[in-house]
Amino acid sequence: MITLLTDFGFADHFVAVMKGVILTIAPQTPIIDITHEVPAFSILEGAFLLEQSWRHFPKGTIHVAIVDPGVGSERRPLLIETAGHLFIGPDNGIFSFALADTSAKVRHLNQSNYWLPNPSSTFHGRDIFAPVAAHLASGIKPARLGSLIKDAMRSPAITPTRLSRRSYVGTVLHLDRFGNLITNFPIAQFETLRNRPFTLTVGLNQVELYASTYANCPPGELCVIPGSCGFYEVSIANDSAARHTGLIAGSPLELTLA
Amino acid sequence: MITLLTDFGFADHFVAVMKGVILTIAPQTPIIDITHEVPAFSILEGAFLLEQSWRHFPKGTIHVAIVDPGVGSERRPLLIETAGHLFIGPDNGIFSFALADTSAKVRHLNQSNYWLPNPSSTFHGRDIFAPVAAHLASGIKPARLGSLIKDAMRSPAITPTRLSRRSYVGTVLHLDRFGNLITNFPIAQFETLRNRPFTLTVGLNQVELYASTYANCPPGELCVIPGSCGFYEVSIANDSAARHTGLIAGSPLELTLA
Amino acid sequence: MITLLTDFGFADHFVAVMKGVILTIAPQTPIIDITHEVPAFSILEGAFLLEQSWRHFPKGTIHVAIVDPGVGSERRPLLIETAGHLFIGPDNGIFSFALADTSAKVRHLNQSNYWLPNPSSTFHGRDIFAPVAAHLASGIKPARLGSLIKDAMRSPAITPTRLSRRSYVGTVLHLDRFGNLITNFPIAQFETLRNRPFTLTVGLNQVELYASTYANCPPGELCVIPGSCGFYEVSIANDSAARHTGLIAGSPLELTLA
Repeated sequence: MITLLTDFGFADHFVAVMKGVILTIAPQTPIIDITHEVPAFSILEGAFLLEQSWRHFPKGTIHVAIVDPGVGSERRPLLIETAGHLFIGPDNGIFSFALADTSAKVRHLNQSNYWLPNPSSTFHGRDIFAPVAAHLASGIKPARLGSLIKDAMRSPAITPTRLSRRSYVGTVLHLDRFGNLITNFPIAQFETLRNRPFTLTVGLNQVELYASTYANCPPGELCVIPGSCGFYEVSIANDSAARHTGLIAGSPLELTLA
Repeated sequence: MITLLTDFGFADHFVAVMKGVILTIAPQTPIIDITHEVPAFSILEGAFLLEQSWRHFPKGTIHVAIVDPGVGSERRPLLIETAGHLFIGPDNGIFSFALADTSAKVRHLNQSNYWLPNPSSTFHGRDIFAPVAAHLASGIKPARLGSLIKDAMRSPAITPTRLSRRSYVGTVLHLDRFGNLITNFPIAQFETLRNRPFTLTVGLNQVELYASTYANCPPGELCVIPGSCGFYEVSIANDSAARHTGLIAGSPLELTLA
Repeated sequence: MITLLTDFGFADHFVAVMKGVILTIAPQTPIIDITHEVPAFSILEGAFLLEQSWRHFPKGTIHVAIVDPGVGSERRPLLIETAGHLFIGPDNGIFSFALADTSAKVRHLNQSNYWLPNPSSTFHGRDIFAPVAAHLASGIKPARLGSLIKDAMRSPAITPTRLSRRSYVGTVLHLDRFGNLITNFPIAQFETLRNRPFTLTVGLNQVELYASTYANCPPGELCVIPGSCGFYEVSIANDSAARHTGLIAGSPLELTLA
């Protein structure tokens, strides 16, 4: 099984071409779209969406993730093996969460005999990543596709930074469709928010309300909610917290505990 | 075979996660997306799009439909069996059309051993509906998943109301991509529109033209057209009737026969 | 295998209904979406996206392509066989690229026993094209579905016109998601742009810069780039050339060689 995550959208032919390339090399492979609506060039949102999705698929699944502003430059194509799953895409931070597992095996895809001939400098999804994924699905071993490396890129933005004893700088990882701001504050690490006063600075707003569900968030008020994704979210009942605050993915947040 | 209809969009991980959950429990199941672009929280449009789609699939298909503003509240999760098809989703009116068949069997999904462990209060698609659908696809019998109920919710908006001998109040069920307003006036029930004068009040507009196809609708004029979906539509040639009139799903309409 | 390309979007039931119809007639057929986001009624963009995609699929694939402003009028439904692939859709220019191969066999789909009963005048995707594709996938021979014709429609806009010894009029075929303007100037035919001065008139802009990749395009400058699709593109680094120039698919371009 192969999953695809890109910022290509469905308005172009790019996704269809990748599927055609995969199905020509490995005709029976089921292909599942994770999303192709990652905002253009937003590596951080791509990393978040991949992290949220991949663990729910069966072991052995091959995840192709392409948000690739550096296509055509020197950034390396990667193959990562971790927790029984395989990951294929550019070396630019999109696999930051998967690489948190220090036992992950990372390879530089440098065996061009498994690519399409004469790869372009603009569409590695078609020319490198799709054919490599299809060859993997057909049984080619990772070791034949590239050599091990140790220095794959990880983005520091995926985890909050401690500023002082009671304050942290975090980041908006993603805006969901309903305008909720998904933060990088893990619920497990900050369980205390449930019953201890806090201030979360969200742009020009100071958020001090905690709600256990969207339904418990008072109308018109920004709330911190333990989301279904393992991170706290900033939400506003039946409205868009993103529009309300003007924040985007990558915007900084400051959390101060009382 | 499982179909999915939600208001989750493809910009988030929600749909992919549901597919991963399904394919982990029931690996070979074909999954077909009906749509994930139901406008957020628009139960009426979800009900319409489901009704338009499900009869075209083979018997035995499992249809998961989730437009669920009340997730985390007391609304029940349902399983419906009717006409050889199965339906899974929240008890909030999204199955209003399917429930018109009075022989439909309705169950309250209350057997949590077929859910993911520790269901969240925000993502029942992942935690309840996807695993139940996958277990059904794997052969688990409906009776093991929940107990029969008689009081599932039906929305009155799906059928027009008679006001007087010659007038009816109806509703816009859906705006299609081309801006046509799909009404809840069934063609079969109002065949007379073809050859009898009428006035349909559509916001500030009085529509009195009938056209048998989009191509027969004069430029710039709102027309009533017998749509492909079994209901009359309000259309305007090569333009958007929705933009022209300002109406949305749920807007009222008044039909007066001459 | 059946691919689908339409301007139906995913916000409606149209695509799901076509899939249900196909899977009822030919239950095991894999269905791949090329795109359903062709801009409404943009036959030229549909033709371009189909041309970019179909060659990457395995031989024997059936490609259903529907951008069909003339549905309900006299335009014919077609079946085309070329290069081992099959194409199904309206006779309105959407197959202009595929028809460039003069050995293509074209049939007028006029055997209504392979359609759904009582076809509507508004939804031939459901009533004619999907069932014919499914019957083909089930092994029905093309000759049983319609009779050969010679006069299928081809759009002249797919190739540039020579104006004088050194100048050509071309067309924007497509705006991609990143706002690049895909032109109809084939790289193979105009290789000279790489090392010979030129002026490309793009709306009010005179573009004289050539860049081999997006990364080589100077910030803020419109560049001509040999795209991954075989045609030159007009691009601007990390911005939208479409927004910058105001051009849309179908807009004219003028190329003058030095």
